[in-house]
Amino acid sequence: MSNHQDVIRRLQRANDSKIVLLVADGLGGLPKEPGGKTELETAKTPNLDKLTKRGVCGLSHPVFPGIAPGSGPGHLGLFGYDPLKYEIGRGVLEALGIDFDLGPNDVAIRGNFCTVDESGVITDRRAGRIASDIGAKLCEKLDKIELPGVEVFVKPVKEYRLVIVLRGAGLGGNIPDTDPQKTGVPPHDPKAADSDSEKTADLLRQFVAKAKEVLKDDAPANMFTMRGIDKKPPVPTFEEVYGTRAAAIAVYPMYRGLARLVGMDVLDAGQTLDDQMERLKASWDDHDFFFVHFKYTDSTGEDGNFDAKVEKTEQVDGCIPAIEALGPDVIVVTGDHSTPSKMKSHSWHPVPTLLAAENCRFDAVDTFGEANCLAGGLGQFEAKYLMPMAMAHAGRLEKFGA
Amino acid sequence: MSNHQDVIRRLQRANDSKIVLLVADGLGGLPKEPGGKTELETAKTPNLDKLTKRGVCGLSHPVFPGIAPGSGPGHLGLFGYDPLKYEIGRGVLEALGIDFDLGPNDVAIRGNFCTVDESGVITDRRAGRIASDIGAKLCEKLDKIELPGVEVFVKPVKEYRLVIVLRGAGLGGNIPDTDPQKTGVPPHDPKAADSDSEKTADLLRQFVAKAKEVLKDDAPANMFTMRGIDKKPPVPTFEEVYGTRAAAIAVYPMYRGLARLVGMDVLDAGQTLDDQMERLKASWDDHDFFFVHFKYTDSTGEDGNFDAKVEKTEQVDGCIPAIEALGPDVIVVTGDHSTPSKMKSHSWHPVPTLLAAENCRFDAVDTFGEANCLAGGLGQFEAKYLMPMAMAHAGRLEKFGA
Repeated sequence: MSNHQDVIRRLQRANDSKIVLLVADGLGGLPKEPGGKTELETAKTPNLDKLTKRGVCGLSHPVFPGIAPGSGPGHLGLFGYDPLKYEIGRGVLEALGIDFDLGPNDVAIRGNFCTVDESGVITDRRAGRIASDIGAKLCEKLDKIELPGVEVFVKPVKEYRLVIVLRGAGLGGNIPDTDPQKTGVPPHDPKAADSDSEKTADLLRQFVAKAKEVLKDDAPANMFTMRGIDKKPPVPTFEEVYGTRAAAIAVYPMYRGLARLVGMDVLDAGQTLDDQMERLKASWDDHDFFFVHFKYTDSTGEDGNFDAKVEKTEQVDGCIPAIEALGPDVIVVTGDHSTPSKMKSHSWHPVPTLLAAENCRFDAVDTFGEANCLAGGLGQFEAKYLMPMAMAHAGRLEKFGA
Repeated sequence: MSNHQDVIRRLQRANDSKIVLLVADGLGGLPKEPGGKTELETAKTPNLDKLTKRGVCGLSHPVFPGIAPGSGPGHLGLFGYDPLKYEIGRGVLEALGIDFDLGPNDVAIRGNFCTVDESGVITDRRAGRIASDIGAKLCEKLDKIELPGVEVFVKPVKEYRLVIVLRGAGLGGNIPDTDPQKTGVPPHDPKAADSDSEKTADLLRQFVAKAKEVLKDDAPANMFTMRGIDKKPPVPTFEEVYGTRAAAIAVYPMYRGLARLVGMDVLDAGQTLDDQMERLKASWDDHDFFFVHFKYTDSTGEDGNFDAKVEKTEQVDGCIPAIEALGPDVIVVTGDHSTPSKMKSHSWHPVPTLLAAENCRFDAVDTFGEANCLAGGLGQFEAKYLMPMAMAHAGRLEKFGA
């Protein structure tokens, strides 16, 4: 039996339509109390509201109801890849995001510098958010560590974040995070979750022991935790599935990495949403599909800063006219998951979604927000169906069957 | 793991209830502009509206969000067969619809007579919609063509439509349509998509070459295109799955064919909805389940004629009292897909659905239309769950598990 992506692959047809997918990371939120408004509902979003009037709204479940996804599955779902079928370690994404050329024998790991006390217990999970240049210097030191029989790469990402890659034959990638997700305890020991990964776990234990020596005088960044240890999975490319020339305009490395994983062209996005809009305009003729990613609705949510998330949401609203001016056939505005500032974390709540196109079945929603989206014509749906709907509205799908 | 149909098969129980499934083909539509009404919302439907008051409404996705189905998968879904599991070529449906007794060695093909110019380029994809008697005479001529090692059957369907069947051992049916779906180009050459179908493709190329000679003086019907080339798949019968004695009352061949494929008794339906209502009444005692098909909501939509579709929808409304007079336990009114006149084609938009029965959880919907169905008690659902719901409301399903 065909899965939904196989079906899309068979039905896709080319035309000269343009699709813009604007992802406001962590867009969905929560009201502070019953009867209150969410961040999105509080924000003044005249442009998005106007767009709802010629569009159709709904709420998407990134994976399935109750599941709070990480950014990886959140985005895979938006890109139309079943996040239960394609599980991608965060280390892999992070490595792709710094243009590290991951090969099939590589195990990639996301590292976070942290502070540990003399007994090895974590006192700061982000090492006081050290500056990027300090992180880079520490990575240079760690990069010199040698392990028997494999190559070791240690690369800085940004601030306290780094990537570690082990390259060599026979390395499994099935090792749980060593990040305990809290302070007051030491990092976990790297332990293999299957027999194929025993060699990798053993090498990582050696690596940690050597790193402890290397970093011993570098507090607050005198240790690191490891997350998302994994190998790169084989995924069909965006072009294979959808037949579109897709471009990613994302500032943050991980989102660039995820876009690269599915074969999008990753463009220079600059640093701001204005930069991104300029890039969108400049690359308009060369691509059919544009993934534009905005990080700060998520990070303000993670910080628990309701007002800042409102402000960042308004910033997203502000870029809509620039997108509309280009005359896309389909505009989709959504998030990869909810990040309610009330919870300071990703959540499972379905994500407000807006799709505007000529052949929408217009609904009564006239303001973009969670409560209104609940009454929208898209209903509640699994995020993996968003791309089929965008493709359909762009006239890019043939009829299924006779 | 059981699929939904296996579960139904285990749970079905007989009683003396009657279920009527009235399919207004292509029922769903679109408003012409934001804030406007769809065809169904524009139509005066007092009988359907009355039915909503003792029923429950919703919107069904024939396949999954974004997919515009052909009539085959559209109806399979309504009949409770997963359209991703059972893919049926249009040629097979068309052959079944003219009472052609398809066997396991048969490859069936839907043909459309078309007009080609002296260079073989299509100038009219439907050969000026020639009258049925002309089509029948041309089929008689083509039926005489002989090919080495196989039997060839060529039968008229209606107007410009015909069925071609090749019967013989070792014939695969995996050959893409030769219909290019547009004028200004010649029909495609029959080409095998797998090695099992090479022999079939070769025979079809010979058949086309001979037919070109046979039809050379028969413009506007001087060639044909081929679609839906396929063999008959093995599907469980309606009686096996649901335990009902099912009757199909459909005027158009393809829908009769689809009903026959799932093992329904195909009754003489006459030509009009009134004829169909008479047949329904006459056969009431002999069956438990009645599939009544009305084509013209689709064909007017395909023609892009909003007003005509409104009128045909009102005609559907007009037959409701005749159905209600028979006292069915469950009435379902829906479509196999949407056909918005704005798009002149099948579309992916979910289909308004109404189910009336004694044990409905009645909802607030009091007028049958797309926007109202959005707030209906059935919500948005995959069409394959409609039959389980009809069966449940008819008291024909045991409890699942203890």
